[in-house]
Amino acid sequence: MYTVFAGGVGASRFLQGLYEAVDPAQITIISNTGDDVEMFGLHVSPDTDIVLYALAGAVNPETGWGLTGDTFAVVEQLQRFGYQRWFNLGDRDLAMAIHRTRLLHAGVPMHEIVAGLARDWGLACRVLPMSDEPVRTKIFGPEGEIDFQDYMVRLRTEVDVRSVAFAGAELARPAPGVIEALAQSSAIILAPSNPIVSIGPILAVPGIRDALGSSKAKRAAISPIIAGQVVKGPAAKMLQTLGYEVSAVGVAKMYTGLIDLMVIDEQDRALGPQVEALGMRCLVTDTMMTSADRKRELAAAVVAAL
Amino acid sequence: MYTVFAGGVGASRFLQGLYEAVDPAQITIISNTGDDVEMFGLHVSPDTDIVLYALAGAVNPETGWGLTGDTFAVVEQLQRFGYQRWFNLGDRDLAMAIHRTRLLHAGVPMHEIVAGLARDWGLACRVLPMSDEPVRTKIFGPEGEIDFQDYMVRLRTEVDVRSVAFAGAELARPAPGVIEALAQSSAIILAPSNPIVSIGPILAVPGIRDALGSSKAKRAAISPIIAGQVVKGPAAKMLQTLGYEVSAVGVAKMYTGLIDLMVIDEQDRALGPQVEALGMRCLVTDTMMTSADRKRELAAAVVAAL
Repeated sequence: MYTVFAGGVGASRFLQGLYEAVDPAQITIISNTGDDVEMFGLHVSPDTDIVLYALAGAVNPETGWGLTGDTFAVVEQLQRFGYQRWFNLGDRDLAMAIHRTRLLHAGVPMHEIVAGLARDWGLACRVLPMSDEPVRTKIFGPEGEIDFQDYMVRLRTEVDVRSVAFAGAELARPAPGVIEALAQSSAIILAPSNPIVSIGPILAVPGIRDALGSSKAKRAAISPIIAGQVVKGPAAKMLQTLGYEVSAVGVAKMYTGLIDLMVIDEQDRALGPQVEALGMRCLVTDTMMTSADRKRELAAAVVAAL
Repeated sequence: MYTVFAGGVGASRFLQGLYEAVDPAQITIISNTGDDVEMFGLHVSPDTDIVLYALAGAVNPETGWGLTGDTFAVVEQLQRFGYQRWFNLGDRDLAMAIHRTRLLHAGVPMHEIVAGLARDWGLACRVLPMSDEPVRTKIFGPEGEIDFQDYMVRLRTEVDVRSVAFAGAELARPAPGVIEALAQSSAIILAPSNPIVSIGPILAVPGIRDALGSSKAKRAAISPIIAGQVVKGPAAKMLQTLGYEVSAVGVAKMYTGLIDLMVIDEQDRALGPQVEALGMRCLVTDTMMTSADRKRELAAAVVAAL
């Protein structure tokens, strides 16, 4: 049993590799729902959907999110009614949001909804939201609090992030299956996702951090920071403005006590000793997932090292 | 002031003519919401939207409903999640349903929503739903009660209609502005719509039938039945199975006491005396609205006769 803590694009690419490297039926994904958002009255789960689409082979490879070949008739038409188009949800992508919203209004808990979606997309692995309760990542910048998607999409991360909070986390409980998966796993992997706003919300759900910290499983994290930069997303900038070291070592420090193995890129080979000095093993390998082969090889290397 | 009771396609074509024949600012439309339906968790108002689209010049002229050139990506994708596609809502059409649903969930009353939509579509006339409260037309056939859209779209009216009911009508109130419009109008027109399931639900809202019956305005109805047939929709078949006379006279009988003038087609000229015997005037004219000119001429003839 492999359990993976997953954010969006980076996680989905690693999971594509893991899905090839091991039996998918042995994979449980714990998905970040902290960046869920209500758009046009519809509930959108960006990170969960990226993972579902990627594993179904349907994700748009150019953007890393959304569906290949999707159209945008609905968001275009919505502008007639005064909606802005900064959240550019495709028509087929929106069908999933319509379905999810209907089920939520009908009282279906999020973990059942996500399980159903994974089935509908033909996935052989298990996908769990981190919680059935709403948790919302909030970004505090110079002009106060904004929603995560406002920061991420509308403002294109051009905000000086002063702090981050997870609204609702204190009242959230791990979704049914999350603690059990962590207890039953032989390996737990923190995907190469933003440690603050992708993995952070999952760890903020009471009980999950403790279950990870006390797990008997072998636990690894893959650094999303390579040579001081991030492949996709605002992680590097965010670590910097929040006062963290923008490197694989900085990420390893955030995960100290939670993992046994830190996976860093060959470009960061020189950082190995600093990582090991934190009391964890360090695997140096190619973590740039630029092809299906390299995704699978990375996943296989992590699994082998664990 | 002209007030028009309106169903869907037939009404929208007459209204296109009236919109050209008189000052649109003098027109108030009372729209049937009895065939509203929740599809995929979204609130759809078929009759209201047909009228809005038609007056905005955006309606698909081939079907009489939906938007010209619309696409169907969302309903196609929804099939992946187990939804049937019999209610073939286009993507741009669906954008309006998303907007309306969001507003309804936010507690905005239907008359404000419809007023906003009319503005968004650039209409110069006023459009009112018959009621802010939900009224749902139910069809009773050999196998029991079904929803109106089930009857109309899914089963393509191939049901032996034994009776019709308007669920919720007894608790509904006329939308703000409806009774005032009827009181202030110089002319009230029942559009060439199905008298049972298009005009019927409007008259079933307590207070509207009385306000129409006691109005000082000149009141007319245009027969949707021409030469024993209907141009569009199930009116003829429905009148027959419910035991009504399938003719302009049958329609006139249903409106007796509510109108001063019955407008029938030239093909039904011979029925004029029977209509007049019911205690109303009869205008015989061309009611086949096969072009923009003929729509406008019909509207102008009705207005002149009133």
